[in-house]
Amino acid sequence: MAILKPSLAQAVAEARPAELDASKLVITLAESLKPLPAPETLVFGQTQTDHMLIMNYDPVNGWSAPEIKPYAPLSIDPMSSCLQYCPNVFEGMKAYFGPDGKARLFRPRKNMERLARSADRMALPPFDTDALLTLIERFIQIEKRWIPAKPGYSLYIRPTIIGTRAALGVTASDSACIYVIVTPTGPYFRGGTKPISLLAVSESVRSWPGGTGGHKLGLNYAPGFAPQRIAAKQGYDQILWLLGDDQRVTEAGAMNFFLIAQRDDGDLDIITPPLDGTILPGLTRDSTLTLTTAHTSGKLLLPDIPASQKLHTHERILTMSEITALSEQSKILECFGVGTAVVVAPVGRIGHEGKDLILPVHEAGLGPVGKAILTVITDIQTGRRQFENWSVLCE
Amino acid sequence: MAILKPSLAQAVAEARPAELDASKLVITLAESLKPLPAPETLVFGQTQTDHMLIMNYDPVNGWSAPEIKPYAPLSIDPMSSCLQYCPNVFEGMKAYFGPDGKARLFRPRKNMERLARSADRMALPPFDTDALLTLIERFIQIEKRWIPAKPGYSLYIRPTIIGTRAALGVTASDSACIYVIVTPTGPYFRGGTKPISLLAVSESVRSWPGGTGGHKLGLNYAPGFAPQRIAAKQGYDQILWLLGDDQRVTEAGAMNFFLIAQRDDGDLDIITPPLDGTILPGLTRDSTLTLTTAHTSGKLLLPDIPASQKLHTHERILTMSEITALSEQSKILECFGVGTAVVVAPVGRIGHEGKDLILPVHEAGLGPVGKAILTVITDIQTGRRQFENWSVLCE
Repeated sequence: MAILKPSLAQAVAEARPAELDASKLVITLAESLKPLPAPETLVFGQTQTDHMLIMNYDPVNGWSAPEIKPYAPLSIDPMSSCLQYCPNVFEGMKAYFGPDGKARLFRPRKNMERLARSADRMALPPFDTDALLTLIERFIQIEKRWIPAKPGYSLYIRPTIIGTRAALGVTASDSACIYVIVTPTGPYFRGGTKPISLLAVSESVRSWPGGTGGHKLGLNYAPGFAPQRIAAKQGYDQILWLLGDDQRVTEAGAMNFFLIAQRDDGDLDIITPPLDGTILPGLTRDSTLTLTTAHTSGKLLLPDIPASQKLHTHERILTMSEITALSEQSKILECFGVGTAVVVAPVGRIGHEGKDLILPVHEAGLGPVGKAILTVITDIQTGRRQFENWSVLCE
Repeated sequence: MAILKPSLAQAVAEARPAELDASKLVITLAESLKPLPAPETLVFGQTQTDHMLIMNYDPVNGWSAPEIKPYAPLSIDPMSSCLQYCPNVFEGMKAYFGPDGKARLFRPRKNMERLARSADRMALPPFDTDALLTLIERFIQIEKRWIPAKPGYSLYIRPTIIGTRAALGVTASDSACIYVIVTPTGPYFRGGTKPISLLAVSESVRSWPGGTGGHKLGLNYAPGFAPQRIAAKQGYDQILWLLGDDQRVTEAGAMNFFLIAQRDDGDLDIITPPLDGTILPGLTRDSTLTLTTAHTSGKLLLPDIPASQKLHTHERILTMSEITALSEQSKILECFGVGTAVVVAPVGRIGHEGKDLILPVHEAGLGPVGKAILTVITDIQTGRRQFENWSVLCE
């Protein structure tokens, strides 16, 4: 807990800190707008747009009036908690153009709920998730010209919360800043989907029981930088993170992992590790499980998968020895990673203990389930298909 | 790896990025100096001094000329790696006045070596540790008036490195900023040493094999904020972090943990968990082991401990059940935590599975070994005693 001076502590007790209030939004537009880059030249996360959305919390005043203002550096005290102890959380979302020319978000309330849980895990001040979503929708309207009007392109949205307590005591940050930035982004794979390679790693562990791997925290990512460099030097695209003596799979790079196995009865098993606190509860993971279940129940027919072929979902432990055994029995139909940035990425090869496990390669890169999931999710995201109000208009 | 445009990649290949060079130091003094606070009013980490030391790295130019300049907020891009993915590392050091009125550092090369290892673990650019230490010594000379001239007081030094790559791709930060700030600090305990209470926690896990607990990273601290709040609500000062099914002790709050056990032969066992990658290799931990070993070998006599009483050091696993058993057998002489901020903090009580383990309380708060260690380390830090050049003049 912060140590407050008596007068300040009294002020905190007497004043009720203000809630986050979207109606207080103040908009200051940039005097001149940046030229839009050619979509083909976009590199993920390297283009800064014209504006940002920002609001601050302190324990006396609560949440400040939110602002949309020209994109600019933040002014941060060198003692600030965000730089020293890293109570920083974020989300990844995308805005898409529909055929009607309107901007859409994909299941945005899920992102807001996860962001609130992440903030709570980092002991950051709470905020009204509905108010933040309203503000993000307003912000997307203002930055709408940055959504590239090309198939497969979108505007990536990065809501971020950082702890801004400016003191070195090792304690929860009683002050915070929420800011939202956006960056236009193209398809993950250009010129056709290409299977990625994974290096299975157990010396470095991404997450563990009792740790923070089940939340979307900035601090879950930097520990992967050095192992990722090693994997890249060995010719692998990403790391397959293993955990424990049984070498169970947790995540693939920053994606959730799926294995699709062929059953003797002609149906398919859809296997992904369970949400036991070591796995990020990904939205694309949840969408994949929901859509395959909907196919099996007949609620929705996945393209190019027969209605008679049932997809049995299993959220359970998946070990490297099971993957190896399934591969040797030629029972693996396909493996893929899922995430907001890539949607679905096929896995073609897993390096494990000095050997390469070669996975089935399909025409067009993705196997039948991965391809169906990518098609349906993309169709929903762009408003060409409706499903359970997953696509939300920015209005 | 950063994706560089061809021209930039070429420039990087051709230009050899500059090394950190202390001789390039540029000093800009503040136009007016802040009033010094009364030492008794100091709260740890809340006082900002007049100046800061800062230098930046980018992959084209390498390290910039270091600057000592007026303390000021940093200007940080919202996309910056330090806020998004947390590749941030730090050190804790202290400067002390000796009886000769000269400022001294305690084993500063150890801090520089650990900082370099932390930066490497976070895949941050390397830096010359000798150059940084030279710069810190120069900086302390300039901020010397902030070292309170009172026993038990010192100037806490916080070298920090943050990743400053301004792009959202999840990859190592190819840019960085080293900055050093200082803050005057008083004794951890005012009005006499008071034993602290620890809540033993195994639901939340601070560190784990294959994780980052053996490095001094900012990201090791924020996950402890929420558990610490729970411990405080239950009336405990800090958390005793446990790991694994055998509930082995890792750290106490942000300190290393020591248990001193009485042996049947009259000697003492000095037990602390081993540096297996889950434990921070603390300087005070290392100093405690070195000094107790020196007592046993006769190299140095610890005050008020008979030369005939040998102190047998053990870096080994220490479980809660062993602590409980030793307590029941009345074999525990004392338990304490050690760290730069506190030096030595006696532990009076450990809450574990709903029960309180009461540890021996000694007159003056600390037991004989803790008191001897505190006395000798403080004497060395302030230059009143020499030992293996541990105390270094800032010249």
